[in-house]
Amino acid sequence: MAGTLEEMERYRDGTVAQNIDNYLIELIDEKIIRADKMSVRYGDLWRALEKLVKAGGKRLRPAMVYEAYVAYGGEHDDKAPLLAGCAIELLHISLLIHDDIIDRDTIRHGALNVTGQYINKYSKSLSDDQEVMHFANGAALLAGDLLLAESHHLIASIDYISKDSSGLTATCFADAIFAVCGGELIDTESSFLDTHIPALAMYEYKTSSYSFVGPLTIGAALAGASDTQLDQLRYIAHPLGVAYQLQDDLLGVFGNTLKTGKSSVGDIREGKRTYMVEQFDLLATKEQKDVFYRVFGVRDCSEEAYSEAGNILKSSGAKVACETKIDELTKYVHKQIDELTISSKHRMSFHAFADNCIKRNK
Amino acid sequence: MAGTLEEMERYRDGTVAQNIDNYLIELIDEKIIRADKMSVRYGDLWRALEKLVKAGGKRLRPAMVYEAYVAYGGEHDDKAPLLAGCAIELLHISLLIHDDIIDRDTIRHGALNVTGQYINKYSKSLSDDQEVMHFANGAALLAGDLLLAESHHLIASIDYISKDSSGLTATCFADAIFAVCGGELIDTESSFLDTHIPALAMYEYKTSSYSFVGPLTIGAALAGASDTQLDQLRYIAHPLGVAYQLQDDLLGVFGNTLKTGKSSVGDIREGKRTYMVEQFDLLATKEQKDVFYRVFGVRDCSEEAYSEAGNILKSSGAKVACETKIDELTKYVHKQIDELTISSKHRMSFHAFADNCIKRNK
Repeated sequence: MAGTLEEMERYRDGTVAQNIDNYLIELIDEKIIRADKMSVRYGDLWRALEKLVKAGGKRLRPAMVYEAYVAYGGEHDDKAPLLAGCAIELLHISLLIHDDIIDRDTIRHGALNVTGQYINKYSKSLSDDQEVMHFANGAALLAGDLLLAESHHLIASIDYISKDSSGLTATCFADAIFAVCGGELIDTESSFLDTHIPALAMYEYKTSSYSFVGPLTIGAALAGASDTQLDQLRYIAHPLGVAYQLQDDLLGVFGNTLKTGKSSVGDIREGKRTYMVEQFDLLATKEQKDVFYRVFGVRDCSEEAYSEAGNILKSSGAKVACETKIDELTKYVHKQIDELTISSKHRMSFHAFADNCIKRNK
Repeated sequence: MAGTLEEMERYRDGTVAQNIDNYLIELIDEKIIRADKMSVRYGDLWRALEKLVKAGGKRLRPAMVYEAYVAYGGEHDDKAPLLAGCAIELLHISLLIHDDIIDRDTIRHGALNVTGQYINKYSKSLSDDQEVMHFANGAALLAGDLLLAESHHLIASIDYISKDSSGLTATCFADAIFAVCGGELIDTESSFLDTHIPALAMYEYKTSSYSFVGPLTIGAALAGASDTQLDQLRYIAHPLGVAYQLQDDLLGVFGNTLKTGKSSVGDIREGKRTYMVEQFDLLATKEQKDVFYRVFGVRDCSEEAYSEAGNILKSSGAKVACETKIDELTKYVHKQIDELTISSKHRMSFHAFADNCIKRNK
């Protein structure tokens, strides 16, 4: 198991993340040269993308592509998981850029996102703030389109081991996008239309789909896994993604700001309808609800008021309910991993990987 | 030649457009069923897309895929050009949806586009017009992403005759998107940044790239054409696209409203910096410029004032300059078609096709 864990480190913190970063930067550098030939203005858009890519991200998704790829018989140094890992990462960045437009965010990974960078650029020429925002979002819209297209081009450029492998990979990629875009629409609309989707279903659509199911099934499909084997992975990836998101919810209220890089009460200020808040509605007393909903989703309260709301989530039992759900899902995930038709070494690696995804503090 | 022309009709007005429409509607119907299972709200997005697809479009790009495919030895009834034709059409619709967001348009083909449909939907629940517009654009953004992803999935689902064919097709598709997104950025920025890109270069990026070069090279690549043969097609497709756009410019000022379905002076009202306007700047007298620029790009002038501006374009010689450029490009295109390494029957067909693209009145 020591060897397996070492391998895991190699994926997550070592060469895989590094290889992915290097490949992405090289790819974007090549686009910058091509774009500059059309106009330096177009080169600027790719330079903005390069800044965004360099700003970071855990590269968790490519790590999963590799994890599944080697588990189903692929070689770590093959080019296929590198290309697919980069594709998944570009898809992820593309979705973030477009989500930020919808959510009106201008910061990502502590740095300016594409919209943010273009607000600075355009405000030198345009005086109307709304016009600046409109066109900055326009640039970000095009930037997201370009990365979405590029992610597909990477998937198309893989030298597949068989037609089945190629067909399954393309389908897994398409399924992930279909689910996450739907999730984004439903989630956005839920703030002003009377659609109620339970938080756990939303986590399946928005998180499990393209961040877990996609990378794991694609990695396995690349190595030649059958559709039945992919189904086994789906049974793991769906609950794993939900557990990951639940852990994110806990960190979003009770996390250590220094480690997460986000305000520990941001989710309360933003009024995120998490599973924990759903549980709070079921468990809390009228008095607790009165205090909580006086600050939940209200943007200009004091840090103390948000902290107090966090304490109420805890005392209501909602935090424990969330932790219990994570435990339940974690047990299910481990049980399903035991069923995988892969070597025991790789099963061990999957177990460690799953724990690492869930039991994190950032 | 009679037979060839008959075949041409079959592409443009008959079975090809019909087959493309049928396939697209079937594809979207299947998505509606899948999306409804997540939420009827998500199904609604696909229903909005279906309305848009049904609202029309000339399906000129799929016709070009077929044109090149059969010219390079493919069979008209093969599935490959159908899939690639649909992919090109979905890419086109996706780009239109996203361009309309940037251009703040809500109408397309005389019907509401996705943003327009969602403004109606959301204004029932949201009272603030700006919020309605923001979220309607958000829905359109996701709709465009879904079609862009689907267009790539269609390209990936083709049963290629060889790895070369598959690689070249993917590259042609990626090149088209790279150019058109860059063109869109540069064009948008040119209205408020001090970038000057000559109109003819802009036509290459925005029109030739994905509407001519893409479809023709992809059709040929599918049939097994070599990269050298694709280059020959590029020599045709670039000027053909520019000539097509120049004809569009003429119709945008001097067209018959009944036939084009657009205001015959819309381009003057909107202040489009066309090649004709560039020529006007070179050719017109100071008096002509004074009158013209009093209405050019000014939205609330009388129809008579716009017509008068059109007359000035004519009397300045700018209209003739535009027509001369079209003639020059047309001659070049026909000369290049004569160089194509395809059968004389298909060369004749290309000649007819090129004329049909340029010499149109709608």
